[in-house]
Amino acid sequence: MITSKDNETVKQAAKLVKSASFRRERGFFTAEGVRICRDGVRSGFSPEVFLYTPSSAEKYPDDFGEIAAASKKLFEVSNDVFSKISDTKSPQGFFCVFNMLDKQKFPYRINRRGNYLACERIQDPSNLGTILRTAEALGVDGVILSSDCCDVWSPKVVRGSMGAVFRIPSEETDDLPGYISRLSSDGVETFASTPRDAEDITKVHFDGGVMLIGNEGSGLSDEAVSACTKKVMIPMRGRAESLNAAAAASILLWEMFR
Amino acid sequence: MITSKDNETVKQAAKLVKSASFRRERGFFTAEGVRICRDGVRSGFSPEVFLYTPSSAEKYPDDFGEIAAASKKLFEVSNDVFSKISDTKSPQGFFCVFNMLDKQKFPYRINRRGNYLACERIQDPSNLGTILRTAEALGVDGVILSSDCCDVWSPKVVRGSMGAVFRIPSEETDDLPGYISRLSSDGVETFASTPRDAEDITKVHFDGGVMLIGNEGSGLSDEAVSACTKKVMIPMRGRAESLNAAAAASILLWEMFR
Repeated sequence: MITSKDNETVKQAAKLVKSASFRRERGFFTAEGVRICRDGVRSGFSPEVFLYTPSSAEKYPDDFGEIAAASKKLFEVSNDVFSKISDTKSPQGFFCVFNMLDKQKFPYRINRRGNYLACERIQDPSNLGTILRTAEALGVDGVILSSDCCDVWSPKVVRGSMGAVFRIPSEETDDLPGYISRLSSDGVETFASTPRDAEDITKVHFDGGVMLIGNEGSGLSDEAVSACTKKVMIPMRGRAESLNAAAAASILLWEMFR
Repeated sequence: MITSKDNETVKQAAKLVKSASFRRERGFFTAEGVRICRDGVRSGFSPEVFLYTPSSAEKYPDDFGEIAAASKKLFEVSNDVFSKISDTKSPQGFFCVFNMLDKQKFPYRINRRGNYLACERIQDPSNLGTILRTAEALGVDGVILSSDCCDVWSPKVVRGSMGAVFRIPSEETDDLPGYISRLSSDGVETFASTPRDAEDITKVHFDGGVMLIGNEGSGLSDEAVSACTKKVMIPMRGRAESLNAAAAASILLWEMFR
């Protein structure tokens, strides 16, 4: 059993939890909790490392067996050590390091009849997690993320997405307007959600395409809006200045599939 | 200037931030941040106490003046004292204690043609905040909360609601099924959102009524579902087991108004 917080595996795991750049450098990300670790395994990911406490292995024997069988390495750790890698208040005692490359089983390819979501500079990991969860639930075929979104592999996004991050095909681009422009020229319908000069979303006919949603505070950039073939908006009766980004995304995607 | 964390006003403020029962006992709640404090004042609330740091008063002179003019008492506090009452990482230096009774300017009355939301045992303050924000943005006339929801006056709900909590008429009941039953008998349409034996929400004709949404994990109680006149569900194509409560509420309320 690992009982030292200075153990190299534990230190690396803790660093993966905290640092987006370290995650990118190594190509690994982490997930904590019984359900989300199991979800990763069931989505076809093989944990590089599975860390668990003895009491959790005892408490969740079936899940333990399932995750352990898929894992390349596993280590029992003390509660004290687990608290170092955990970012939750009441840890369940399961922690996995996953390999980003395992996601290649879900290849990303734009198909003109498909339904896609593009996110520009979404900053809040809870919002991004919820948006990915909603996208998967409604049946989105893939997600394009501008590289200035918060890190899609962060523990908060992984958890908030309820595992959608494992499965939903996604890709990143450091030139979202350029990317969207090319799709628009190729005849893909691209929808900018923006309150200015936009069509009421209930009046728009959808037959596939890409829905773009923007930053929580400032919305889509002018460049992204210009790259799109259509502008759409959610008509609002109420007093609030705007919907939360995740709530707006829910309604926009819902209308796309309705 | 208050420089001691043992100051009675500061101690009471800190306790109001932390304790739901203390908030109920005193009838006070708190809000922190420039925008939300100003929002409270503009919604007709008169701060019982306004605590601010000298640097924040200097940085936001117009907001400071507006909030100060509406406040019954105001105190300058040191940064150190402010950190005791703040529950954010980068405090903006404005903190108000508000009186729940000021909300009586927004009376609650069910009107058969109106559109209402009822929440049963929503546990996560971020979800409840987002749901209230969405409800206000879409034009909901009032919200009914079961008393086992998380505290609607908690700082997280106030902040997440973007001030909707100040304005949206709301009331609490410790018998939600009974309350809904009476409305149903009175001819108000009451909609249970539940995946079992329910009608596709896109096929439902809405002309006012009450939309009920349930707990994040377990949904609505059987009692609440039975009290309703109709059951509705969001059809899903994707793989995710369900939508996040706030995302589901966005879609349900959106359909109610569409």
